[in-house]
Amino acid sequence: MAIKTQTPDFRRETPEGDSHERDVCTACGFVNYVNPKIVTGSIVRHDGRIMLCRRAIEPRIGFWTLPAGFMEVGETTEEAAMREAREEANAAIVIDRLLAVYTIPRIAQVQIMYLAHLAEPSFSAGPESLEVMMVGWNEIPWEEIAFPSVTWALEQYRSVEGVADFAPFSNPQE
Amino acid sequence: MAIKTQTPDFRRETPEGDSHERDVCTACGFVNYVNPKIVTGSIVRHDGRIMLCRRAIEPRIGFWTLPAGFMEVGETTEEAAMREAREEANAAIVIDRLLAVYTIPRIAQVQIMYLAHLAEPSFSAGPESLEVMMVGWNEIPWEEIAFPSVTWALEQYRSVEGVADFAPFSNPQE
Repeated sequence: MAIKTQTPDFRRETPEGDSHERDVCTACGFVNYVNPKIVTGSIVRHDGRIMLCRRAIEPRIGFWTLPAGFMEVGETTEEAAMREAREEANAAIVIDRLLAVYTIPRIAQVQIMYLAHLAEPSFSAGPESLEVMMVGWNEIPWEEIAFPSVTWALEQYRSVEGVADFAPFSNPQE
Repeated sequence: MAIKTQTPDFRRETPEGDSHERDVCTACGFVNYVNPKIVTGSIVRHDGRIMLCRRAIEPRIGFWTLPAGFMEVGETTEEAAMREAREEANAAIVIDRLLAVYTIPRIAQVQIMYLAHLAEPSFSAGPESLEVMMVGWNEIPWEEIAFPSVTWALEQYRSVEGVADFAPFSNPQE
């Protein structure tokens, strides 16, 4: 059952035994430990092409992204990346290796991006996608990419395409 | 100022627009999104030796671990690993590359482990460590290691010692 939520009244306090100030609810004393959140996703390959999904939801509705999303409790990072490909592109994928770990400090997000391939040549738009396509390098719509880290992942992957052993990437140097 | 916290009264509900049940506070309506938490740490090398810290805090007080701990908001994964080495071992380190990404689903923890080296040959026990030592392979106290993932990291690192380019590790196959 869905419920309507209200905004709790927090104050900044340092809980006992802690070294950082946290938001503490004035109504119930709940300590809201805010931790960085994990996004997992993958570059899904098939026949030299790469999967892109056009977003059906905000933010950046209508723009192209890799299948990726928030990791849930109870799954591994690899399982989370496989679930996202299933949910967003109705695609069964096989994880090949880790491509990159990015941090976006402004939004406290860590993005764990894998290289993967289609387990079978079948995909279609899931509920969070308007459409899904497999593209070659020359067909990537660079001007319509949803997020900078999608561009990072695509460009970094291109720099090591065909190389089996390489150190994973981090945020590109600005 | 430290405050004493009380336990909020949560019920399981699916918030509007969400696909998962979450804990919602019956007093204030706060939705407690529980996300996997990120631990960052490193294997810190110097002169062919590896840094181990003997834990001064629970869990596993008195056992040996790598400098590692919970990532905070506002830092990158690499900065978090550097901060942990500073806090636990008063050590300035340089991050070399990513070694492994582990998931411990039972405790909803993702561990991001780097290879690093000492920026200068100086270290000592911080407040969360009883002692800090640099050990060779034959001196590792395998029976007194705090957590399985510390053993994984040490053994996996040993398998690629001296190799520059390798794919990062994940949980070992059981």
